Amino acid sequence: MNIKRHIIVLFFLSSIGILNAQKGYDLWLQYSEISDSQLKNNYTSNIKGLKLLGSSATLDVSANEIKNAWNSFFDQEIKNLTEGENLLVLGSKDELSPALQEELKSEFAKINEEGFLIKKVSIANKPAILITAKSDIGVLYGSFRFLKEIQLHNDISDIDIIDSPKIQKRVLNHWDNLDRTVERGYAGFSIWDWHLLPQLIKPEYKDYARANASIGINGTVLTNVNANSLVLTAPYIEKVKALAEVFRPYGIQVYLTARFSAPLESGDLDTADPLNDEVRKWWKDKADEIYAEIPDFGGFLVKANSEGQPGPNNYGRSHVDGANMLTEAVAPHGGIVMWRAFVYSEHDPADRAKQAYSEFVPFDGKFQDNVLVQVKNGAIDFQPREPFHPIFGAMPDTPLMMEFQITQEYLGFSSHLVFLPKLFEETLQSDTYVKGENSSVAKVIDGTLSNKKLTGMAGVANIGTEKNWTGHPFGQANWYGFGRLAWDPYLDSKKIAEDWLKMTFTNNPEFVQPVKDMMLDSRETVVKYMTPLGLHHIMDTGHHYGPGPWVSELSRPEWNPVYYHKANSEGIGFDRTKSGSNALAQYADPIAEKYSSPETTPEKYLLWFHHLPWDYQMENGNNLWFNIATTYQEGVDEVRNMIDTWEKMEKYVDEQRYQKVSMLLQIQLKEAKWWRDACLAYFQQFSNMELPESVPAPEHNLEYYKSLKFPFAPGIRPSWN
Amino acid sequence: MNIKRHIIVLFFLSSIGILNAQKGYDLWLQYSEISDSQLKNNYTSNIKGLKLLGSSATLDVSANEIKNAWNSFFDQEIKNLTEGENLLVLGSKDELSPALQEELKSEFAKINEEGFLIKKVSIANKPAILITAKSDIGVLYGSFRFLKEIQLHNDISDIDIIDSPKIQKRVLNHWDNLDRTVERGYAGFSIWDWHLLPQLIKPEYKDYARANASIGINGTVLTNVNANSLVLTAPYIEKVKALAEVFRPYGIQVYLTARFSAPLESGDLDTADPLNDEVRKWWKDKADEIYAEIPDFGGFLVKANSEGQPGPNNYGRSHVDGANMLTEAVAPHGGIVMWRAFVYSEHDPADRAKQAYSEFVPFDGKFQDNVLVQVKNGAIDFQPREPFHPIFGAMPDTPLMMEFQITQEYLGFSSHLVFLPKLFEETLQSDTYVKGENSSVAKVIDGTLSNKKLTGMAGVANIGTEKNWTGHPFGQANWYGFGRLAWDPYLDSKKIAEDWLKMTFTNNPEFVQPVKDMMLDSRETVVKYMTPLGLHHIMDTGHHYGPGPWVSELSRPEWNPVYYHKANSEGIGFDRTKSGSNALAQYADPIAEKYSSPETTPEKYLLWFHHLPWDYQMENGNNLWFNIATTYQEGVDEVRNMIDTWEKMEKYVDEQRYQKVSMLLQIQLKEAKWWRDACLAYFQQFSNMELPESVPAPEHNLEYYKSLKFPFAPGIRPSWN
Repeated sequence: MNIKRHIIVLFFLSSIGILNAQKGYDLWLQYSEISDSQLKNNYTSNIKGLKLLGSSATLDVSANEIKNAWNSFFDQEIKNLTEGENLLVLGSKDELSPALQEELKSEFAKINEEGFLIKKVSIANKPAILITAKSDIGVLYGSFRFLKEIQLHNDISDIDIIDSPKIQKRVLNHWDNLDRTVERGYAGFSIWDWHLLPQLIKPEYKDYARANASIGINGTVLTNVNANSLVLTAPYIEKVKALAEVFRPYGIQVYLTARFSAPLESGDLDTADPLNDEVRKWWKDKADEIYAEIPDFGGFLVKANSEGQPGPNNYGRSHVDGANMLTEAVAPHGGIVMWRAFVYSEHDPADRAKQAYSEFVPFDGKFQDNVLVQVKNGAIDFQPREPFHPIFGAMPDTPLMMEFQITQEYLGFSSHLVFLPKLFEETLQSDTYVKGENSSVAKVIDGTLSNKKLTGMAGVANIGTEKNWTGHPFGQANWYGFGRLAWDPYLDSKKIAEDWLKMTFTNNPEFVQPVKDMMLDSRETVVKYMTPLGLHHIMDTGHHYGPGPWVSELSRPEWNPVYYHKANSEGIGFDRTKSGSNALAQYADPIAEKYSSPETTPEKYLLWFHHLPWDYQMENGNNLWFNIATTYQEGVDEVRNMIDTWEKMEKYVDEQRYQKVSMLLQIQLKEAKWWRDACLAYFQQFSNMELPESVPAPEHNLEYYKSLKFPFAPGIRPSWN
Repeated sequence: MNIKRHIIVLFFLSSIGILNAQKGYDLWLQYSEISDSQLKNNYTSNIKGLKLLGSSATLDVSANEIKNAWNSFFDQEIKNLTEGENLLVLGSKDELSPALQEELKSEFAKINEEGFLIKKVSIANKPAILITAKSDIGVLYGSFRFLKEIQLHNDISDIDIIDSPKIQKRVLNHWDNLDRTVERGYAGFSIWDWHLLPQLIKPEYKDYARANASIGINGTVLTNVNANSLVLTAPYIEKVKALAEVFRPYGIQVYLTARFSAPLESGDLDTADPLNDEVRKWWKDKADEIYAEIPDFGGFLVKANSEGQPGPNNYGRSHVDGANMLTEAVAPHGGIVMWRAFVYSEHDPADRAKQAYSEFVPFDGKFQDNVLVQVKNGAIDFQPREPFHPIFGAMPDTPLMMEFQITQEYLGFSSHLVFLPKLFEETLQSDTYVKGENSSVAKVIDGTLSNKKLTGMAGVANIGTEKNWTGHPFGQANWYGFGRLAWDPYLDSKKIAEDWLKMTFTNNPEFVQPVKDMMLDSRETVVKYMTPLGLHHIMDTGHHYGPGPWVSELSRPEWNPVYYHKANSEGIGFDRTKSGSNALAQYADPIAEKYSSPETTPEKYLLWFHHLPWDYQMENGNNLWFNIATTYQEGVDEVRNMIDTWEKMEKYVDEQRYQKVSMLLQIQLKEAKWWRDACLAYFQQFSNMELPESVPAPEHNLEYYKSLKFPFAPGIRPSWN
């Protein structure tokens, strides 16, 4: 489309509704107009044209991104030029002149295969800004980084940026089913329109890839860990191939979930025993079939012998047997296996929090090289707050992959504003002490603590068919933040919030400062109104929507909230010290030692590790019951404050996003009160104590809260109703 | 948002991808820029400002629509002015001066409550264009009509338009489930986000209402006819109320499907017998509860004793008993009941095509005044082609509502380009002959044939969460066309196609003419490659995706394709003459007489009414087998022609819509071949004759086609897999 036609088309769009609708779709790639003339001059005087060195699909998408952004920033075309002053030059190291390669030698030595340099250089004696890397994908990452500099209104006159990802496999996990329902999805349905693939390539596929590449995500697992083996059949491989082809220029590999019983379900074999030769051959053949179509296929993600999924244990084999068998199939093609450690059994009477550690730690060092053991951030299940998973640090001879949940299964679905990078950061910065102080989880994950080559971080996606991808406009920040932390797990969540706000809304500090503060506080707020002081897993059953601390009759004991809070007339909390389950022993000292006494346990984890009397004296001098109640109340009050903050932001935000956030905050407030009231009404039966004066009596009685039913809450498969 | 801010925002949006994505969402309300200066002058010189007479929410949305459109057409603001020359004046009759009311007396006499006048008049001695009506909704319809005149580039200097809808209830039926799956939905999932209602009001709800109002649709049934009684509980009524409030200014009433067993399922009663006093009271109370929240609630749509749905027959009562009971509940509030005639029973050995007539015609005159009996266009089920339903004309004392299917359950889902107004028109213009010649179905439906007061037309919606609402860009034309025909069932489908193309794409005749021709031919094309010469119901089972003429083992005989085509070595077709089921006797003469002989039966209905030998001689001198085969081939060839036509249109269409249609046409071609090959491979077993030379041998053998399985084809509830 030429510029003239482009401008004409621009006029087509002047309806207000239309404009706003689009902003949500464009995520953090708004490329908002630079209206400040000094700033504009800084950019347009430093960049007079665009020059590509070499040619590839990845270089093309880099150039297109820059061209579209340029139009959007400056309402100006950036021309392709082959010579002249002040060019923006894009190309990989091999395309640079030998002199320039030599000049940049020390910089190139600092980056890895996916890293990049952005630097003011002289090319043919003329000043230029060079975006270079060891690979074209690095150039693409550099291009997005360069555009971000403009989005953040940074000076580029002397630009000099060197960056590389610290983690190798930065992967979204889609819990998307083939019928397009999304397990724990709250943003509509799956964006993968399997029925119309491979023929229909939707624009959303490309924009999904653009968004991911812009934050450095380089892999996507297309299918649910509760897997369907049909995706491994030829017609689906053809569909997966079509997606892989869209994603390839953006540096994104596709992965699939492998249902362990696939050899059986295919009808080919009557066993899926990983030590059976025919089974091993079946998987090798299957991998060969996939790689013939998708040469850069990433590999498999497997949930085995967990929550009803089949696995090697069905044949008396171990997780090592299972993972290593799959590894043999994909390793010759450069693929990997991500094997989930999320296992627990109803036949094991041990504290569920202990089981994954007990089962996996003995396997340390036994997995083959291209297996990543994928471990959730905490030992239970993506709760609003959990201590870091004790497996981190406990398997020095095994590459461990972090699994975060971006979709808010337990944190208010897509209707609560919760900035998750704050949670992710808390886990990553937790010190495991396994090699003394400064043995953070981040160092386990990026491989530096035990010198691991293969590294990875997975995020369970919050993306769906919603027009703005994530439902809640602030849900986009969690996708964004996950990508940023997968690139650099040491990053400060404040910086992430600030960048995201500027790129997504506006650089105006009168907006950025208060909204950033609101975001940074939001995770603590949800902990307060849902599960304060170390409480966990007290949500309602199945859909996990709203409170359900009373639930006690599910078939598996460890599925019941009462298993986790253990409230009775004596007190509340899960004793995980020596006098209880001793899950604490799975942590290194000084954690194990320090947390063994409630007095030295951080209050945020108090009831995670201790069962304490209702009148237990807390740091602030009040008793436990008083603090539980007032913390729930604080959570509610803080949501009210978020509403106040947001109301002041109306003038900085387009109408549609402003209104949507406003409406969602009202839902959040209503549900925060519901959590407070239902949990306090329930726990008060046991505490037998009055509510503090500052906490209002629950709006309804306990029976009312217990009676609420939500058969069509989102995120569950309709067949589970 | 003021204009200055508006213009700034405009610049934000210059990325090409962004622009194209939006065009699909905006449907036929593109309001494309008027670049021709003469044209622009015609409009802007005739309209210098906007003046509203009176005030109401409906008047506000009318004015907003005009303002937004004005920006989009002319990149100019249209100002609110109270006096001056050349104003566009909006207001209902009561707001006009007595003199003007008198002047327009004869015009007002010609319109009904929803009709409108658009006329050049003199107000305070100054020329003005007046949009007026007996109601504000009429003014809104007039406003959309006025904007359409500009979209079509018509001269407005002497504008003089009088129009009224000919049918009273113009209603979309959403087969949307509460879990957001859509039965027979091929455009994603339900746009009703029940979980976040009533608090979250999505922009889509308003844009849905705008689009419907623009074509005169004035009602929407939110829920599936295979109903869930939960929607009648208080929490859902609150959600429905929130939608009703969005729709109200646009003149759109909400309706719900009433599950007949709701009194039982609510737990309140142990029967749903319509003659039981408690049941009657239950429904009255329920209606009162709904109307207390939604004073303009439209009423209920009911599928009873059909395909497993509960109904009055469960209690030995009739459809009349059931409908009249519900009527009693809603009538005091001005509501109606739409009672579906789509019934057939596996216990009735009679031809399924006869059963609805046999059951309903004896009830003629027995339904209460505010019941509409809703009848599908044909006697089987929304096939690519069916003769009109014999009930039309056979129940002169009962208001009959037409039910068309906009969603393409049997016509290629959302991946085949089929312009359905051509099908709707064929039914509406069919002559029933019940009162002699010129007793068209349209006259039955608009009430003129038998002087009916209550009239209606329903369309099963093809709308979903797809970014462009309908999936296929040309699917939008079917929504549009349904609305136009519900407003005026005598409208020519050519006019509909032409208007839609101009409003949706461009006025350029080099685009409009060939694409219009393609659209007009497209319905005949799908008949040819799916079910030529009167064949019907030979699709695969459950999902109805692709051919399945071999299916013969379903539990209910009338669910099997073999029941319908009856192919054997003797011949093919369903004998519905006296020698067969005699369904033909349900039609008036001369149809019954004329169609009793194959020689005088239109060939398009031949195998619907006759079982004929494979070597039966057709009009063109070839035998039946030859013509079946060559007609399938013609269908395939015509899809190829569509592709050729579309390829020439690239320069007139934005990239994104162009590419999407191109990709979908390739799917259509592939599936047309599949239908041809599978059906001919199957039928050839019986004909035992060679394929004509012009028809290639099927690509695969019959076993291959029979082996194809599509467990995740869209449009079925996941629990049906």
